[in-house]
Amino acid sequence: MARWGPDADNRLYQSAMQLIFERGYDQVTVAEIAEHAGLKKRSFFRYFADKREVLFAGAADFEHEVVEALKKAPDTAKPIDAVMAALTHAGTILTNYGDAARQRQRVVTSSMELRERELIKMESLTVALAGVLRDRGAEDLSATLVAQVGAAAFTTAFREWTDAPGTAQDFAWFMTQTRDRLRDELG
Amino acid sequence: MARWGPDADNRLYQSAMQLIFERGYDQVTVAEIAEHAGLKKRSFFRYFADKREVLFAGAADFEHEVVEALKKAPDTAKPIDAVMAALTHAGTILTNYGDAARQRQRVVTSSMELRERELIKMESLTVALAGVLRDRGAEDLSATLVAQVGAAAFTTAFREWTDAPGTAQDFAWFMTQTRDRLRDELG
Repeated sequence: MARWGPDADNRLYQSAMQLIFERGYDQVTVAEIAEHAGLKKRSFFRYFADKREVLFAGAADFEHEVVEALKKAPDTAKPIDAVMAALTHAGTILTNYGDAARQRQRVVTSSMELRERELIKMESLTVALAGVLRDRGAEDLSATLVAQVGAAAFTTAFREWTDAPGTAQDFAWFMTQTRDRLRDELG
Repeated sequence: MARWGPDADNRLYQSAMQLIFERGYDQVTVAEIAEHAGLKKRSFFRYFADKREVLFAGAADFEHEVVEALKKAPDTAKPIDAVMAALTHAGTILTNYGDAARQRQRVVTSSMELRERELIKMESLTVALAGVLRDRGAEDLSATLVAQVGAAAFTTAFREWTDAPGTAQDFAWFMTQTRDRLRDELG
């Protein structure tokens, strides 16, 4: 296996996942993750700003997917429905990784530092979604609330999906369940 | 002024606020905060686990207030209304500090590290609220969603309040606005 290559970031991600899963987040160093991936510690920082970021390598792509999907939503769609559809689209790509996505979520949930980073990634996504909603004509308060509620619904649906490894239902089903429950509880 | 006293945690909080407000979060050390408060660096860690925690000295009290208020909600109250009422109660105590509360929020918003810590405090609150809702008979999915939506509504209402320093409206007004908007957008 080449010590360098276009897949170095992926090797670092896989190494981090494996070592953290085995030992716990606090017991793994950047040097160990890099070594396990066949790289020098210094090289790690070419790819990731800190130890946490390696677990969030896909976060920017995920946000991009959601934002682009929301931009393409029909003008007539109610803001919450447009947001839920965009999150369903990107969540489907994510959950197509199956148990690999579940294992990553368990790693993230195992560490407060990782959960904090996950929360701020979701906040970044929420701000981006609210921006698109405003561009589509929503008022400030509505845009912020709808984006936040959409993010909360996604987090919940994704957690339900993570906790159901053998499920025959796809991610869209979990999002629909969540949307229906929101309507019941908040209408 | 006594070098030691029951108000040491408050002096550390005030010192942290002042120094971070003047220089920025990353430019202030624990040693400087402690010195400004008339304490040794080591003493800081008697009160707070890390540099971030000093800005969240009131978070546990806030969570306690919300949880206790929710426990006392009438059995007949719809979950979302019970949660909103509990958050309005605790938020009113918080916003009674007026511009001091606004300045603290600006300090927290100025730093990614502090925003991350704030988000995980809100997550802790959300988990606690969902627990109370389950104790009151709500299903798992409903309890989680309602707690998350309530937290999102509170965050939004508090931000609106923070951004309106001269407002004649009390915090309850901001919460009501947010509740009405949620109903319009999600019903």
